[in-house]
Amino acid sequence: MKSRFCYSFSFLFLLVLYGGTAQGQSLQEYLKKKEKALLESYITFLSIPNVSTDTVNILKNAAYLEDLMADRGIKAELLTGTTPKVTPAVFGEIKTPGASKTIGFYAHYDGQPVNPKQWYAGVDPFKPVLITAPLESGGKILGPYKSGAEINPEWRLLGRGAADDKAGVMAILNAYQALVETGQRLGVNIKFLFEGEEEVGSIHLNEIFKKHKEKLKADCWVIIDGPRHVSGRKTIVYGVRGDVNIELTVYGAKRPLHSGNYGNWAPNPALKLAHLLASMKDEKGKVLVKGFYEDVTPLTASEKKALAQIPSQDALLKKELGIYASENPEQPLVEALMKPTLNINGMQSANVGAMASNVIPTKAVATLDLRLVKGNDYQRQVEKVIAHVKSRGYHVLTQEPTEAERAKYPNLAKIEIEHGYNAQRTPMDLPIAKTIQAALQSTSKESLVLIPSMGGSLPLYLFEEILGTKVITVPIVNYDNNQHAENENVKIKFLWEGIESIAAIMQMK
Amino acid sequence: MKSRFCYSFSFLFLLVLYGGTAQGQSLQEYLKKKEKALLESYITFLSIPNVSTDTVNILKNAAYLEDLMADRGIKAELLTGTTPKVTPAVFGEIKTPGASKTIGFYAHYDGQPVNPKQWYAGVDPFKPVLITAPLESGGKILGPYKSGAEINPEWRLLGRGAADDKAGVMAILNAYQALVETGQRLGVNIKFLFEGEEEVGSIHLNEIFKKHKEKLKADCWVIIDGPRHVSGRKTIVYGVRGDVNIELTVYGAKRPLHSGNYGNWAPNPALKLAHLLASMKDEKGKVLVKGFYEDVTPLTASEKKALAQIPSQDALLKKELGIYASENPEQPLVEALMKPTLNINGMQSANVGAMASNVIPTKAVATLDLRLVKGNDYQRQVEKVIAHVKSRGYHVLTQEPTEAERAKYPNLAKIEIEHGYNAQRTPMDLPIAKTIQAALQSTSKESLVLIPSMGGSLPLYLFEEILGTKVITVPIVNYDNNQHAENENVKIKFLWEGIESIAAIMQMK
Repeated sequence: MKSRFCYSFSFLFLLVLYGGTAQGQSLQEYLKKKEKALLESYITFLSIPNVSTDTVNILKNAAYLEDLMADRGIKAELLTGTTPKVTPAVFGEIKTPGASKTIGFYAHYDGQPVNPKQWYAGVDPFKPVLITAPLESGGKILGPYKSGAEINPEWRLLGRGAADDKAGVMAILNAYQALVETGQRLGVNIKFLFEGEEEVGSIHLNEIFKKHKEKLKADCWVIIDGPRHVSGRKTIVYGVRGDVNIELTVYGAKRPLHSGNYGNWAPNPALKLAHLLASMKDEKGKVLVKGFYEDVTPLTASEKKALAQIPSQDALLKKELGIYASENPEQPLVEALMKPTLNINGMQSANVGAMASNVIPTKAVATLDLRLVKGNDYQRQVEKVIAHVKSRGYHVLTQEPTEAERAKYPNLAKIEIEHGYNAQRTPMDLPIAKTIQAALQSTSKESLVLIPSMGGSLPLYLFEEILGTKVITVPIVNYDNNQHAENENVKIKFLWEGIESIAAIMQMK
Repeated sequence: MKSRFCYSFSFLFLLVLYGGTAQGQSLQEYLKKKEKALLESYITFLSIPNVSTDTVNILKNAAYLEDLMADRGIKAELLTGTTPKVTPAVFGEIKTPGASKTIGFYAHYDGQPVNPKQWYAGVDPFKPVLITAPLESGGKILGPYKSGAEINPEWRLLGRGAADDKAGVMAILNAYQALVETGQRLGVNIKFLFEGEEEVGSIHLNEIFKKHKEKLKADCWVIIDGPRHVSGRKTIVYGVRGDVNIELTVYGAKRPLHSGNYGNWAPNPALKLAHLLASMKDEKGKVLVKGFYEDVTPLTASEKKALAQIPSQDALLKKELGIYASENPEQPLVEALMKPTLNINGMQSANVGAMASNVIPTKAVATLDLRLVKGNDYQRQVEKVIAHVKSRGYHVLTQEPTEAERAKYPNLAKIEIEHGYNAQRTPMDLPIAKTIQAALQSTSKESLVLIPSMGGSLPLYLFEEILGTKVITVPIVNYDNNQHAENENVKIKFLWEGIESIAAIMQMK
């Protein structure tokens, strides 16, 4: 019996591994056959603008997802929290007879803001086009996909959300459909959750979780978001950093001044901001804000081991990104990502280039983001930055300065905090974590890259704190996808491989 | 004989002083009677967009000026240099029988770029509106001037060029017309020169001067540009600072990076720029670039005396501008303006505010202007800045970095220089300078403010070097005119007073 069982087990395992099906069609064969239809459907999805704050279009995305799910026989439900009129998360559920585990799959359908002028000339971020490769690397724009045309899996699809994170939504729904259509068995109960406010800090996810706690229970939520390791190897990530944004504004005169008539006399807010930012972080990237690196939870032995095994891609990355050195050449990327950061996302004062004029600006603004690791608290971290600004002689405001404040304080800084959240890390040794690892490994000849925490941020602490559920992230897109920026793109073969990865997890027992 | 002569002279002087005319109509009476027509005509002029680089509209301005001059019996001539197809300067000439001196009057009809989004809501910079006062000071927008409506001289006309420097053009032409229409005698031959490229550094004025050297000869060119002293008193300026602009760009990775995945590892160009700018100028406004304050020609005894007599408006200005202190509280404005400066006009890296996203920007740009005083050479001053950037470990480029340069140098800075020019200063004791001073003083009960050099810049060295002619500046507009910036405006009474000032100079002998 034992030997027969083992044989059966091995046979099933091989079926999964090589994608054998009752109909004799492997997942790869299925995907190859359906790739044109899958790409066309994905382009339709990407063509619905999805900037988180564009509520009208966001709701169109949610409605489109309901249709996609209905096509697959999944009854979609729009989950909201207690705040009225907010963007819904789209939920669905599949029960698998005999399954002992429930795995949730999460992705988000909203995207970052777009500034079309910054994208490749002539490209509308919401009218996806194919490119052979990024134009900076010698690629060219092929234009919109023509129905029925051959697809080179090395090409990329360019558009907002193409990688972050409609790719996740697309891969989850199509992995399920692929298993159904090729007649393969599911191993687990499946829950689907597609959020529409991730890029604005998942501001209502806590409400949704609290309100639908029972519905959202699972043995593990698998997050399909973020990029695979730079090596291109399949990747599991066990944690995320927290994140909080700060908008810092410093002030000069109330009105713009002629730089000839007042220069070298009236304070220049751009110079003030330069001094303030320079005081926050040295030229080697070390944050100089007092206590900034305190509170950090040390890494476990497994995490240290995993970090040491991550293939270093620093040299490749530097070449690819066109940089001579990292901020601190002694610190490899994998180590840098395990620390809290302070980063300037953007900076503006009056105008530059053709729009510049000989003025002293009235104010200078920097948008900062603080990434947080396990142990950091986002509010405490922000307080440290505020204390730093004060220590530089600034009176800190939360609103535009009044006349009285202007008359009283030599240095005025407005600090606005956007919603933030803390880091989350799942132990790598948990049984469910190991099962997922094995399932994913079965789809790849190369060994997986196991990352204790990604550099990016998702509000995964909510899964742990409210649902009491572990979380593991399986990123599927290419690392050089320009997520959050202009010319966001996904390499097409990563979509197909992502579908395979998710299908394997859906089949595990 | 002597006494009779003296009597005649005094009589004539009084005529000038009180604006008596053959028709018995004073200049003030004339202006009061004609103010509605003058304002309407000025609004028509301001409604022709005049951004220096907008060639199509710039030529419309030139054509409009030809018409204005023809209306006044002045034969206009479009002067160009040797470069083909460039913006012409509009020239005209009036010979006065018996006059021994020729005075040229210069103003410019082009303006700085506009970013309408930065102007008061709903205002088109080229559709002038009346305001009761700046909105920051509690003023309100009255809307477009309605033909025939009463005019409060304390109101302001808002629009690009309203102060800088269509006000100069308007006042010169209407001063001449006022003298003709009130039947008053001219004392000097008059030349008119209206330039269309001042705001882009008067890039062809040298060619125009060389080509039309004889035509443009005069005993003195009077420049009508810039603001009167903050005290509101009528002002003469004997010099200008030179100016040169630098656009400084520093680089990060070739593509925008997710701040979570690469933050604290990939170099952040916004931070690099902050450090670089902070290294150039300390927090008290002292420029730290090596040798920056060398080369400066010391002030003469007359200049020092004049500076000491300029009423200090520092306290008033600080209040009005909403600043607690100047950059260096020990240095009054009049002293600061006699030194070379380095000023940040604008700064930009990726986006801030609603457009911000969690990226590491690819580059950061600052537009700087260097103001120069007598003794400085603009090329030498720029070289000092370049040497400073190099001393901070930067490889300095004049174009975007190549792949090879990115691979070779840790720090890359592109430095682009815009056309610059040197300072100019006319000795205050010259006879022609004293005559103009007396004429202007005759129009004001308050004593004039005499300024050895204004803070702003005009390419006045060309008048001296090419034409061999002295230059004196008589600014006419209110100091708080927002020139070069959004919400540029002129206080209406300054237009009428400007016309009176210029008329007095046209009547001097």
